Amino acid sequence: MSVQKSDGMSYAPKGKPAPVVKPGEYRFAAMHLDHGHIFGMCNGLLEAGAELVKVYDPDPAKVANFVKTYPQAQVAKDAREILEDPAIRLVAAAAIPSERGPLGCRVMEHGKDYFTDKTPFTSLQQLAQAKRTVAATGKRYFVYFSERLHVECAVAAGELVQQGRIGRVVQVMGLGPHRHGPAGSRPDWFYRRAQYGGILADIGSHQVEQFLHYTGNTEATVQMAKVANYRFPQFPEFEDFGDFSVIGGNGATGYHRVDWLNPEGLCTWGDGRTVLLGTEGYIELRKYCDVAHDKAGDVLILVDHKGEQRIPVAGKVGFPFFGQLIRDSLDRSETAMTQAHIFKAAELCLQAQAVAVRVG
Amino acid sequence: MSVQKSDGMSYAPKGKPAPVVKPGEYRFAAMHLDHGHIFGMCNGLLEAGAELVKVYDPDPAKVANFVKTYPQAQVAKDAREILEDPAIRLVAAAAIPSERGPLGCRVMEHGKDYFTDKTPFTSLQQLAQAKRTVAATGKRYFVYFSERLHVECAVAAGELVQQGRIGRVVQVMGLGPHRHGPAGSRPDWFYRRAQYGGILADIGSHQVEQFLHYTGNTEATVQMAKVANYRFPQFPEFEDFGDFSVIGGNGATGYHRVDWLNPEGLCTWGDGRTVLLGTEGYIELRKYCDVAHDKAGDVLILVDHKGEQRIPVAGKVGFPFFGQLIRDSLDRSETAMTQAHIFKAAELCLQAQAVAVRVG
Repeated sequence: MSVQKSDGMSYAPKGKPAPVVKPGEYRFAAMHLDHGHIFGMCNGLLEAGAELVKVYDPDPAKVANFVKTYPQAQVAKDAREILEDPAIRLVAAAAIPSERGPLGCRVMEHGKDYFTDKTPFTSLQQLAQAKRTVAATGKRYFVYFSERLHVECAVAAGELVQQGRIGRVVQVMGLGPHRHGPAGSRPDWFYRRAQYGGILADIGSHQVEQFLHYTGNTEATVQMAKVANYRFPQFPEFEDFGDFSVIGGNGATGYHRVDWLNPEGLCTWGDGRTVLLGTEGYIELRKYCDVAHDKAGDVLILVDHKGEQRIPVAGKVGFPFFGQLIRDSLDRSETAMTQAHIFKAAELCLQAQAVAVRVG
Repeated sequence: MSVQKSDGMSYAPKGKPAPVVKPGEYRFAAMHLDHGHIFGMCNGLLEAGAELVKVYDPDPAKVANFVKTYPQAQVAKDAREILEDPAIRLVAAAAIPSERGPLGCRVMEHGKDYFTDKTPFTSLQQLAQAKRTVAATGKRYFVYFSERLHVECAVAAGELVQQGRIGRVVQVMGLGPHRHGPAGSRPDWFYRRAQYGGILADIGSHQVEQFLHYTGNTEATVQMAKVANYRFPQFPEFEDFGDFSVIGGNGATGYHRVDWLNPEGLCTWGDGRTVLLGTEGYIELRKYCDVAHDKAGDVLILVDHKGEQRIPVAGKVGFPFFGQLIRDSLDRSETAMTQAHIFKAAELCLQAQAVAVRVG
C-alpha cells in the first residue's frame, strides 16, 4: 500500500488488486475533479477490476493532471460524451460539494449509477431530490465515505465488532482533525459556505456514517451540534471546528468532533481517531498515524476483559468496499451499503449543521 | 511515587514531600471514610506539611483500617471531638456523596475549613446551602478533584497551556472511564441514585472542573447531556454511562464522557484521557497508562507546529495543590483554586445531570 499523507485532500490509498469482474465487464468514467478524493475513488474501483474509460472536467488543467495518473482515460470534450455513452455503467465524481447532488441526479437520469465523494449533499432539498431520482430511475447514489471505507483499520474494526469482540457497541466517538495546510493551498469554494456546506455537512458526514455502521443503527436523532471559526477570521464563511452528538434508535449514541486545526508538526494530515465503546471492551482506531510513536497508521488498540492489544493492520485488510460496490451495481444488491444507510448519514450531518450553535 | 492502580476507589497517589508549613503549624482531622479517596487526600496534605491529629467515622472497621496507614491519628469517639477542637483548622472527609454538602456546612459552622472528596454535592439545594454557609462563616469549601489535582500529567498540561504552548485552548475533551470491579466490591450507596447523585453529578464533576481550568472559563452553560445503564440492569438506579457538553463564556467548549465500563483486561482502573485542542496544537493526556504501550501513566502527547512529542512526566511534577490549599487556608488566599471555580464546577455537573436524556 502506498499513500501520500501530507494532506487529506490528496489522500488516495492504493490497495491490493482484487478484481470482482472480468476485464471490460464494468466500465466507468470520472467527471468533475474538484476534490483530490477522485484519485482514491478511481484507485479503489480499478483495483476491484473496473475499467476507467473516460474523464471530463470543464477545467483542462485538472483533466491533464488526471490523465497523467490514468492515461487509459479518454478525454471527453463535453459531459454528454460520458452521460450518453451506453457502455459506461457508473460515473465517479468529486465535484464542488454543492454540485454533487444535482450532478448525481443528472447521472442517474441518464441510466447510470453515481459514485460521489463525500459529502453527498449540502442541503436537505438536494437529498430529497436524490431520493426521488433514485426511486424514479432505480439507479444508485453511492458515496465515498473514505474515513471508514478506505482505511484498513476501520474495516478491521468493523469485523471485530461483527464478531462481538467488545460486546454491544454503546458509543462511537469520532475525532476528525484535518490539516488546513499552507495559505493559498485550498480552492475558493473551500471557504464559501454555500459551496462547501459547513464543516458538519462536509467532514461530519464521514463521522455519522461511521456511527450508523458501527452501532448498527438505521435511525438516529441529532441531540446537539456546534460550529466555530476560531483561527481563520480572514474567511468569515469558513468553519474550522464543529461537533455534534446523535442518539441512535437502538440506544447507542455518537459524539463526533471535526476541525481544521491539526498542527503542521504532525507527521500526517490528521490524527484521526475513532473509539468504539462496547459493553465488554473498547477499540481505539489510530487511523493515519500512532502519534509520537509510529508514523504508520492503521493501528487498532483493543482492550477487553483479557488484556490490551496493539494491532497494526496496514496492508493486511484491503478495501472490500469497491468490489462490493461494483457487484451491487451489476447485481442490484446492497452489500457494500444500503441506499437507506447512505441517505440517513447524509440527512443526519445536514440536520446537525442546520441546528448547530455558533460558538466562536 | 507509588500508586495502587487496580481500581479508582483506592487510587491514592503519593508524591514528594514539599512542606509549606512548619511541624504543628497546620492540624487537620479526617471524618467519614466512605470513599477510599480519603487516603489520597490525607497523603497530599501530609506531604505538604500538615499534621493529621484525629479521625472519626461511625464505623469502627473503617477507622481501624485508616489508623493502620495513619497511626498518628487519634481516634475520636464522636464527631464533636473533632468539630469542637480549636486546634483543628480543616476537616478532610469522603462521606457518601449525598452527605458531603451537609457535613461541609456543619464543619464550616464550627469555624473550620472543609476539604471533601468529589463530587461535592448531589443537589443544587446543597450547593446553595454551602454558598450561604461560606458567605456567613468566611470558611472554605475545598474539593478533591483528583483527576486533575492528583495526576502529574494534568498538572504539567496546565503549565504548558499557561505558557501558551498550544495557543488558545478552544476545546477540552475528557474521557473518564472507570472500572466497576468484581461483583460485591462496591458499597450499597454506590448504586442508590439518591446517595451517589447520578454519574454526571459524581464522576462528571472531575470533568467539568478540568474544562473550566484548562479553558480559563468562569461561566459556562450545559448544551446537552445523556445518561444510560447499559450493563448493570440488576442495579436499576445505577448509571454506567454519561456524557455532556458545555459552552464556556469565552467560546471554548467541552465534551465529557464518563462510564463504568472499563474492561478487566486494562492494566489499571481506567484509561482516562483528556485532549486539549488549541489553535496552535494539541495535548493528549494519557493519565493512568499509555494503553497497549506502557503501564506507566502520566504521559503527555504534545503536537504543535514543530512536531510530535511524547513526554512522560511521572515523578517530575508533584502535586502543588495541597500546599496551596494549606496556604489558602492559613492566608485566606485563593491560590489553589477559587471558591467560585469550585462552586461553578459543582453547579455545571449538577445541571448536566438534571437535564440528561436517558438513552439506555
